[in-house]
Amino acid sequence: MSPIVALLTDFGLQDNYVGVMKAVMSRITADVRFIDITHQIQPQNVRQASLTLLNSYRYFAPSTVFLVVVDPGVGGSRKCIAAEAGGYRFVAPDNGVLSFVLEELGSASIVELQNPAYRLSDVSNTFHGRDVFAPAAAHLAAGVALGELGPRVERIAQQMKPQLRIEAGQISGQVMHIDRFGNVITSIGQLSWNEQGLLLQPRFNRGLAATVIPAAQVSVAVKDATLFGIRRSYSEVSKGQLLALVDSSGFLEIACNQGSAATLLGVNGGESVVLKTG
Amino acid sequence: MSPIVALLTDFGLQDNYVGVMKAVMSRITADVRFIDITHQIQPQNVRQASLTLLNSYRYFAPSTVFLVVVDPGVGGSRKCIAAEAGGYRFVAPDNGVLSFVLEELGSASIVELQNPAYRLSDVSNTFHGRDVFAPAAAHLAAGVALGELGPRVERIAQQMKPQLRIEAGQISGQVMHIDRFGNVITSIGQLSWNEQGLLLQPRFNRGLAATVIPAAQVSVAVKDATLFGIRRSYSEVSKGQLLALVDSSGFLEIACNQGSAATLLGVNGGESVVLKTG
Amino acid sequence: MSPIVALLTDFGLQDNYVGVMKAVMSRITADVRFIDITHQIQPQNVRQASLTLLNSYRYFAPSTVFLVVVDPGVGGSRKCIAAEAGGYRFVAPDNGVLSFVLEELGSASIVELQNPAYRLSDVSNTFHGRDVFAPAAAHLAAGVALGELGPRVERIAQQMKPQLRIEAGQISGQVMHIDRFGNVITSIGQLSWNEQGLLLQPRFNRGLAATVIPAAQVSVAVKDATLFGIRRSYSEVSKGQLLALVDSSGFLEIACNQGSAATLLGVNGGESVVLKTG
Repeated sequence: MSPIVALLTDFGLQDNYVGVMKAVMSRITADVRFIDITHQIQPQNVRQASLTLLNSYRYFAPSTVFLVVVDPGVGGSRKCIAAEAGGYRFVAPDNGVLSFVLEELGSASIVELQNPAYRLSDVSNTFHGRDVFAPAAAHLAAGVALGELGPRVERIAQQMKPQLRIEAGQISGQVMHIDRFGNVITSIGQLSWNEQGLLLQPRFNRGLAATVIPAAQVSVAVKDATLFGIRRSYSEVSKGQLLALVDSSGFLEIACNQGSAATLLGVNGGESVVLKTG
Repeated sequence: MSPIVALLTDFGLQDNYVGVMKAVMSRITADVRFIDITHQIQPQNVRQASLTLLNSYRYFAPSTVFLVVVDPGVGGSRKCIAAEAGGYRFVAPDNGVLSFVLEELGSASIVELQNPAYRLSDVSNTFHGRDVFAPAAAHLAAGVALGELGPRVERIAQQMKPQLRIEAGQISGQVMHIDRFGNVITSIGQLSWNEQGLLLQPRFNRGLAATVIPAAQVSVAVKDATLFGIRRSYSEVSKGQLLALVDSSGFLEIACNQGSAATLLGVNGGESVVLKTG
Repeated sequence: MSPIVALLTDFGLQDNYVGVMKAVMSRITADVRFIDITHQIQPQNVRQASLTLLNSYRYFAPSTVFLVVVDPGVGGSRKCIAAEAGGYRFVAPDNGVLSFVLEELGSASIVELQNPAYRLSDVSNTFHGRDVFAPAAAHLAAGVALGELGPRVERIAQQMKPQLRIEAGQISGQVMHIDRFGNVITSIGQLSWNEQGLLLQPRFNRGLAATVIPAAQVSVAVKDATLFGIRRSYSEVSKGQLLALVDSSGFLEIACNQGSAATLLGVNGGESVVLKTG
């Protein structure tokens, strides 16, 4: 059985772009299977795509090929690349969209997609998703070795890391994402509950030391609101009330039980979030 | 060939939630196939999900596993359950979302999802779709028997039924759903055409007797509008005109030929609808 | 392996309509595979669906079955048809939605879907996608011959062609589509780069002669804007600047590098576009 191609783009679903990429892949390897991560990354928001990929990849089987196309520089000088790390394969423009996941997985092999045998015969200047990236992903899924796609690349573009600052008495981060429910996901993570409380192991800044947070005694400030304590689940507060808790990817989340925290707080993304620990 | 997992959630498509659930299921049973019913149930609208499931399930092959995740109580005290009825399998939170379909199918076996062998090793408090429900659905699709998932449950939460009142001279219901086209679907059903006219066999209140409605002579009142007669198809009225007809699931529908009845009428859901029969 | 069914509708993804059509097809032929082109055609916009199909079909493997349901006349007198041309199969209402693609492919066989063996036993008047078109598509995918579905049709409804007028010194067209990114796609195509410049081979008006356009010396006027030259890629202008280029399907596109040209220009679709060549 052919491996899965997991798709992550900013193409939306209103045009034919995603369908045409899948058509191209199906012609290359008929039994390919697709899982859409999302196609609703904000147009050209490479950072949002990087974070979404980082929070998604580990749930997929090794051997999955990730087709990541958020590509503001299409047709320009940025490279088209493919990478292999941790058993996973990735195909994407070289604009930083893979930097978080490849740093986390470590020791990646990366190549530039130069071999014309593994792209469509006509390559447009505006839709490399269809003409370059989808064919490469399908060929990888069909068993072509990474090294066949083109020459090795030593250095790739890096995405700026989300802010996380650990000081005596406070941890500062920012709003990274707002989900469909209006849940506000921050850059303060990786958080996990253990016997002493909440353990913070910085996800993006691996040099920073792990810290234990006394969850019951902290406060979280974002915009005009201050929330006391970090809860275990939405249902610890009444319907309509704000709370802070750990999201399903291990980041600090500000939510509203059965409501939208983003609407209540007037948060759009990028805002500062401060966790007072002392 | 593995059975189909049919997904019905309020997760939307802008985040990675649906993709991650599918990834989890594909790791458990590689040849699983997915059909999305919809992921755009309004956030936390258990009632809308119940009705959508009721109007969808019969088109799927028996053995289909329905993964239904609209779960305002995630992380709280509500149970996670799986059920088997009419050859179908269902996995969902115990919040009433399965009550309509299980009542219609009759004689269900229901279990609580307690067996840790059939969930992810780390279970979050905010995303049981990924950690509990998707694994259970995948294991059922892979052939695990319902009884393996956990102990039997005797009673499940019930969703309040849509209103339907049959009196001399009038039948009263409410707006249940507004679709993409602005068609207004009411709770007055099950309706089917026969030789005498339109037969009403109450779908939700099975105790109520069947009634024949003289379709040509009735009027339908909703908000400020009164429509005369129940039509067979949109094209019986001119473009832009309102009409009442029987929708594709057997419920009374108020529509506008090639337009949005909901916009014309200012209807949002929940409004009273009265069918005068005498 | 069963051929692919490619779906193109105006059903959106908020209701259960698409999922139910897939369920119906899966019951008819269990190993059918689906690729969604899009379900977000504007409600009843047959013209938009025609153009989307025209720009999509060639990327699919021959033998693909296209299930095209944009059907403002459902339940009325329009026929339900299936066609075979260029190795592809198409199932759709006879409202012009297939006319562009069948003219381009030439010599189509067309039948009316009259055989009751290849539809659901109960056919509603409001959802032929589920009751008539999806079953026909699935049976074609399963190997049923086109001629089995019903009697031959000699003439089908025609969609009005997008405007394209070639005169001395100027070529006039119109805005055909605005995509998710706000790119403005016009009816001026098929364009392809060659040694002399940009070759225009009229896509819809095949009687018109091919013309070479001196890309560097032309201007493109739409609403209040005039753009000089036709560029090769978005990155030839600065971020936020407007440009004209050839889109990935060969039509003249007005875009904004990393922004929305449609928003900048206030364009909604249908506007006149003039390319001055002299």
